[in-house]
Amino acid sequence: MSAGLPPQSPESYVQRRRELGARVSGPALLFSGLPRPQNYPANVYPFRPSSHFLYLTGCWIENAAVLVDGQRDVLFMPPEDPDDVVWHGPSPGWADIQRATGVSEIRDIAELDAAIDAAATATLPAVDATTRFAQGRMLDRAWAEPGVTVELDERDASLADAIIALRTIHDDAALTMMRVAAEATVEAHRAGMAATRPGLRESDVRAAMERPLLARDMVTAYPSIVTVHGEILHSRGYDNPIAAGDLLLADVGASNRGWAGDVTRTWPVSGRFSPTQRTLYELVLAAQLAAIEAVAPGARYRDLHLAAARVIARGLVDEGILRGEVDGLVERGAHALFFVHGLGHLIGLDVHDMEDLGDRAGYAPGRQRSTQFGLSFLRLDRDLQPGMAVTIEPGFYQIPALLAPGSAQTKAFDDDGSLDRDALAKFADVRGIRIEDDVLVTAEGPEVLTAALEKQPDDIEALVGSR
Amino acid sequence: MSAGLPPQSPESYVQRRRELGARVSGPALLFSGLPRPQNYPANVYPFRPSSHFLYLTGCWIENAAVLVDGQRDVLFMPPEDPDDVVWHGPSPGWADIQRATGVSEIRDIAELDAAIDAAATATLPAVDATTRFAQGRMLDRAWAEPGVTVELDERDASLADAIIALRTIHDDAALTMMRVAAEATVEAHRAGMAATRPGLRESDVRAAMERPLLARDMVTAYPSIVTVHGEILHSRGYDNPIAAGDLLLADVGASNRGWAGDVTRTWPVSGRFSPTQRTLYELVLAAQLAAIEAVAPGARYRDLHLAAARVIARGLVDEGILRGEVDGLVERGAHALFFVHGLGHLIGLDVHDMEDLGDRAGYAPGRQRSTQFGLSFLRLDRDLQPGMAVTIEPGFYQIPALLAPGSAQTKAFDDDGSLDRDALAKFADVRGIRIEDDVLVTAEGPEVLTAALEKQPDDIEALVGSR
Repeated sequence: MSAGLPPQSPESYVQRRRELGARVSGPALLFSGLPRPQNYPANVYPFRPSSHFLYLTGCWIENAAVLVDGQRDVLFMPPEDPDDVVWHGPSPGWADIQRATGVSEIRDIAELDAAIDAAATATLPAVDATTRFAQGRMLDRAWAEPGVTVELDERDASLADAIIALRTIHDDAALTMMRVAAEATVEAHRAGMAATRPGLRESDVRAAMERPLLARDMVTAYPSIVTVHGEILHSRGYDNPIAAGDLLLADVGASNRGWAGDVTRTWPVSGRFSPTQRTLYELVLAAQLAAIEAVAPGARYRDLHLAAARVIARGLVDEGILRGEVDGLVERGAHALFFVHGLGHLIGLDVHDMEDLGDRAGYAPGRQRSTQFGLSFLRLDRDLQPGMAVTIEPGFYQIPALLAPGSAQTKAFDDDGSLDRDALAKFADVRGIRIEDDVLVTAEGPEVLTAALEKQPDDIEALVGSR
Repeated sequence: MSAGLPPQSPESYVQRRRELGARVSGPALLFSGLPRPQNYPANVYPFRPSSHFLYLTGCWIENAAVLVDGQRDVLFMPPEDPDDVVWHGPSPGWADIQRATGVSEIRDIAELDAAIDAAATATLPAVDATTRFAQGRMLDRAWAEPGVTVELDERDASLADAIIALRTIHDDAALTMMRVAAEATVEAHRAGMAATRPGLRESDVRAAMERPLLARDMVTAYPSIVTVHGEILHSRGYDNPIAAGDLLLADVGASNRGWAGDVTRTWPVSGRFSPTQRTLYELVLAAQLAAIEAVAPGARYRDLHLAAARVIARGLVDEGILRGEVDGLVERGAHALFFVHGLGHLIGLDVHDMEDLGDRAGYAPGRQRSTQFGLSFLRLDRDLQPGMAVTIEPGFYQIPALLAPGSAQTKAFDDDGSLDRDALAKFADVRGIRIEDDVLVTAEGPEVLTAALEKQPDDIEALVGSR
């Protein structure tokens, strides 16, 4: 199997490691991790190495670690096991891996403990618990103890910052991978639209969408959301029937050797938006286009979020659902009754890129999450720079628990008459709409990586049920 | 979402818990486990509760535990979180869950620690490390320490034995679930055969096979093997092109709410077996049918394995590949140069049922694995009883590393002339064949749960490329 070898030329990985080596003062050690068992140790979920390790090596290798020390680097990995050849077939030898990754040296992972100075070596905690505890013990970290919350000490935090600085600005090799992820994601969505017809179940559409990803030997970058209950933001079920009056929301993205696509489209199961559905669909689309338009170097992502929020609020005022002055409504968070979540997030090797490092990746130094409902869910507040990739994904939802009269979020707006429930009632056939694309920041402005995928309502209607 | 509720009536779960309560002397506590993160905490693999928990409750609930104490039982689980309703939609309330599972009581998981007597309570270690360490600390188990090998103490071992006694003999509710898993598995294989044509890649066939499982809102019970290199027994890649002369081996099974199907078929990419392929295919099929025929209460599974081995050895002697007397060849393990692995394993909620408990489940008390190459891979050595379900899956493989002249396994057979490499060379177009079905032991003999799926070579040929 060639699965262990990196998909791109060694130069890109060497370059990333050299830049990391130049940015951190001592050695840095990043682990690939171990497969996660489903129900017994040998029955594992599809293995995915840690994104930091993948970024620096491109290698799909279990139980490995890369040590970057200035301009020198060592890949530690398990030696070839003759029994393994019988069961798993031939795999690339160390010489092949060294050539393909450009590392200075490959050594047996069993030698790692003796090869490092725990106090001097910076690391980032692996996401799988087994690796994290073993790693933490090897490196004397407090988070080696089960139950202890992971907090980065100063040395590890500075490694995190160096990695964030690198991974936030995508190099050409990264963009090549992301463009293919975007292309596959577009194909999946078109297949989903084409396969949609009343009387099927959500699972049928999901299956139609994931099949082309499997056919490309890809997996999904995150668990797909394919539902006629788009208002359930983190819906994980696929067992609802899909009926002629429903909107179907599909949030599905491909993982291209780890690099993520992340796209949402919402389409009418019948192939025709109702007038009310079309009105709110066009409103969400206008908000998305306004935010994309505002993508430019130096733009603050939070301002894009607020710009989209203002478009939504303005539209809701126009439809009589909200009453009042737009800026004031947005300031008070009235839009967040419907556009509940943040505008988007960084995207790269992780669909929420580097979310393992928390808001350290998404929020610029000195910026913190708001405590206001809605804005509190914003995952990104940085000034955009060329090479950053972000999602832009506004939405409109009617979440019963949130909109229930007397709920903590609606009370103030009911009390002062900002919310017109009679006007809202006319839009009962709209439970959830989201429109999401992946956008690269360039010096010239936005480049929509997933631009090939239809999103104008007429174009969507033409695709639905076409197969 | 109704995903949390059990798929079957409460009586079956109550009955299982009552039987467990009657078999263990003190309280027994079984955990559902936690989702396993892929690359950051919020991006998790599809959650699967521990099979022991599923068996006793049918509930798809994270971070829960069921306490069975004689005829009393308590389900501990997280309380409903109002924020959760906003993000995940309405979920069944405690009253619904209590009704659907028939438990005596539901309590907050936060109360579990105080509710149990660690020394008196038997448990089985969860498969996910995070749960296992938390559980082990709560119950003062040695395996709460990272790096410590899990060994069951006497009290936990007796719980394991009680669970094994129950889960080994499938009740009607279990069989209902397994029949649906079998039906879905059959559909997947037919779709794979129909979609096969030269020039595609393995991933295309895999996608065609998994699509109907996704459409049924099912997942695979284990990572699919779909390859033209059937000789790579644990092949995990899908990127080979499939060509007209190749045999394609597909080992794919559905998981029906946790209950597993496990089927292998091997078919010619062109739709026509070559004469040499047909000869060895028919040999493997004869071995499989002989082993299935021998399924009966009281039969020792190891004897079925050896019966299949004798059919294979006899056929290889007939083709001139092996030379000598069949019983002697099998005794020396000559067949294992080609039929490398064991005949099969228990199947139920796990595809290798209860393999989390090691050979304690697969091997009857007093029986141990052989050290002979081939027999050492046999996962099951029990006397069959009505209600047991097993796979029957002989195969023929030419594994280059194993058959290399001078390899540890072949040397003796080369030296004494038992292996005729010239005769073998005529079968170069056969790299790997396996034929596998799921078989229920009944008082009357074998009932093949996956019998609907074609396996006669003419029937296979008629299906391949039919779509």
